[in-house]
Amino acid sequence: MRTIDWADGTVRIIDQTRLPAELVGIDVGEVDELVVHIRSLAVRGAPALGVAGALGMALAAYRSAESGGDLDADLAVAADKLSQARPTAVNLSWGVEQLRAARAAGAGAEQLLAAALAIRDADIEINQALSDRGAQLLAGSRRVLTHCNAGALACVEFGTALGVIERLHAAAPLEMVYVCETRPLLQGSRLTAWELGQRGIPHRIIADSAAAGLMLGGQVQAVVVGADRIAANGDVANKVGTVSHALAASYAGLPFVVAAPESTIDPGTESGAEISIELRDAEEVLALAGRRVAAPGSSGWNPAFDVTPAALVTAIVTERRTIDGRACELRPEVVLAGDAGLATAG
Amino acid sequence: MRTIDWADGTVRIIDQTRLPAELVGIDVGEVDELVVHIRSLAVRGAPALGVAGALGMALAAYRSAESGGDLDADLAVAADKLSQARPTAVNLSWGVEQLRAARAAGAGAEQLLAAALAIRDADIEINQALSDRGAQLLAGSRRVLTHCNAGALACVEFGTALGVIERLHAAAPLEMVYVCETRPLLQGSRLTAWELGQRGIPHRIIADSAAAGLMLGGQVQAVVVGADRIAANGDVANKVGTVSHALAASYAGLPFVVAAPESTIDPGTESGAEISIELRDAEEVLALAGRRVAAPGSSGWNPAFDVTPAALVTAIVTERRTIDGRACELRPEVVLAGDAGLATAG
Repeated sequence: MRTIDWADGTVRIIDQTRLPAELVGIDVGEVDELVVHIRSLAVRGAPALGVAGALGMALAAYRSAESGGDLDADLAVAADKLSQARPTAVNLSWGVEQLRAARAAGAGAEQLLAAALAIRDADIEINQALSDRGAQLLAGSRRVLTHCNAGALACVEFGTALGVIERLHAAAPLEMVYVCETRPLLQGSRLTAWELGQRGIPHRIIADSAAAGLMLGGQVQAVVVGADRIAANGDVANKVGTVSHALAASYAGLPFVVAAPESTIDPGTESGAEISIELRDAEEVLALAGRRVAAPGSSGWNPAFDVTPAALVTAIVTERRTIDGRACELRPEVVLAGDAGLATAG
Repeated sequence: MRTIDWADGTVRIIDQTRLPAELVGIDVGEVDELVVHIRSLAVRGAPALGVAGALGMALAAYRSAESGGDLDADLAVAADKLSQARPTAVNLSWGVEQLRAARAAGAGAEQLLAAALAIRDADIEINQALSDRGAQLLAGSRRVLTHCNAGALACVEFGTALGVIERLHAAAPLEMVYVCETRPLLQGSRLTAWELGQRGIPHRIIADSAAAGLMLGGQVQAVVVGADRIAANGDVANKVGTVSHALAASYAGLPFVVAAPESTIDPGTESGAEISIELRDAEEVLALAGRRVAAPGSSGWNPAFDVTPAALVTAIVTERRTIDGRACELRPEVVLAGDAGLATAG
């Protein structure tokens, strides 16, 4: 089953809130319902959100055609709702914008769906290409660490950071993948470990806070993560905790690689300081498995992302190029220039 | 109620596994039972473990006297069991050694108890003294971050890192204490938040992985933590995750202060590389509130501590002195020399 797809006039998603206990699909027939599932993280991950943005717009067009509504007005409403569902991942609004552009060029409901399906299909090829590039870059690493989930479940059916890990393992068996559990919602222990288990790749789940000690202690040889938005200067917004791992990798002299499609790069955001960080319900931190564990009366603070300065990023691998974060921090044109980026590997 | 005390011929402890839901004491009548409670973290925290080591030896002496056993043989057995209950915190074996020295000087059961009670009483004075020193050092900080629990619950009745925070708040109200939840056993959200709530100090619980982003984003002005063992070169073993915070503080240019009694300094350990890191049951990471959350079949890795290199430590404050970690890394004699340490504040 694909993470996100189009089926019988609906958007079909895997409900990731129910993994790893059960693998269940949901057919989503309305944009409002899709927004609820995006907010609850039933569908999540920057590349999958890009496809969700596009398929959500196609869904809006279909419903509009069926009800004889005003297509442009209905698409405008849907675009607003979808883009604002989660503020940090740029891919979501990127997917929406692709469909708006298609509509501006005259596409009707059928052509809008075709455009969304093309984005879905491209996601698979793009992630395979960037995974090949990342695996070449990290060819010598047999013990790697990752955070959150940047696997097939964050994409359509092939991951970014986990795509790199899968390719590395295919080239020569990995000794160990250290999987950060990723508090508060445990995308690491629930989703990444599940994916690695299915692929037979050796892995261990660790508390997020154990990562630095493992890196400084020599148990990890490389870190690879995904991204939710990359600013024009190479700063990377990703799941909260990512910058801790980047700092530890930098201190330990380990490569810290960000694997993400070009669509994650946001030329409209000059630096990480401009990136809006989604603040989620503090209950996610205060409760475990639905039961409050924190001291009664205490409140929480739950930012969902953080920003890793470009200077801490060894490489950003996209489907087209390998960008040296340390070089581009002072030269935003490296990030923005597309093929002019530094091609250090493959 | 004190965290640990002597009452009616038993060691009385607060059962911290049941906090914050309920505040319950346990009267522990046998060394074996005390070891179980030390392993389960019912009693925990380096200074409290020092007192537990000493009171545990007094308990062994009492039981030996009652049963007409061989005092020296019984103390030797108790010393082994207590010292090995948890390998990383040096205070535990330090407390045991204090009582062994008293016995070597001819003390019987009554004098051994008196020696243990003196250690209990000294813990309070020592922590107040080091807290005063730490608060002077951080006098300008109004938004501080701490990890795990180095409060009254880690000591007898007055904390180390939380003692510093309490003193800071008494001098001028703090704006915010960011409390890292401290996975996997949540000593931050369960214990530290509970203590801060009882004292009316404003605080917010965060995922451990949110700390770095807050520091780099300017929301935190200082970090203060406790320690479980300080090597001769100033390297600090403390709850897993501590070194992440030290790296982020260093990158953000924030003071990173370790508050610990002199008894935490272990002259027998040359550097952090020699410190044995306790590896706990992986189930602590794989399950939440008794329910498995991780992917079926996946295993975990659960180190309970990590080592922060001295170079990342702005200051170690003890009851006698303030040690500059960055200076002592290359000059172990600074750490070992007692009063010859750098007295930069108070």
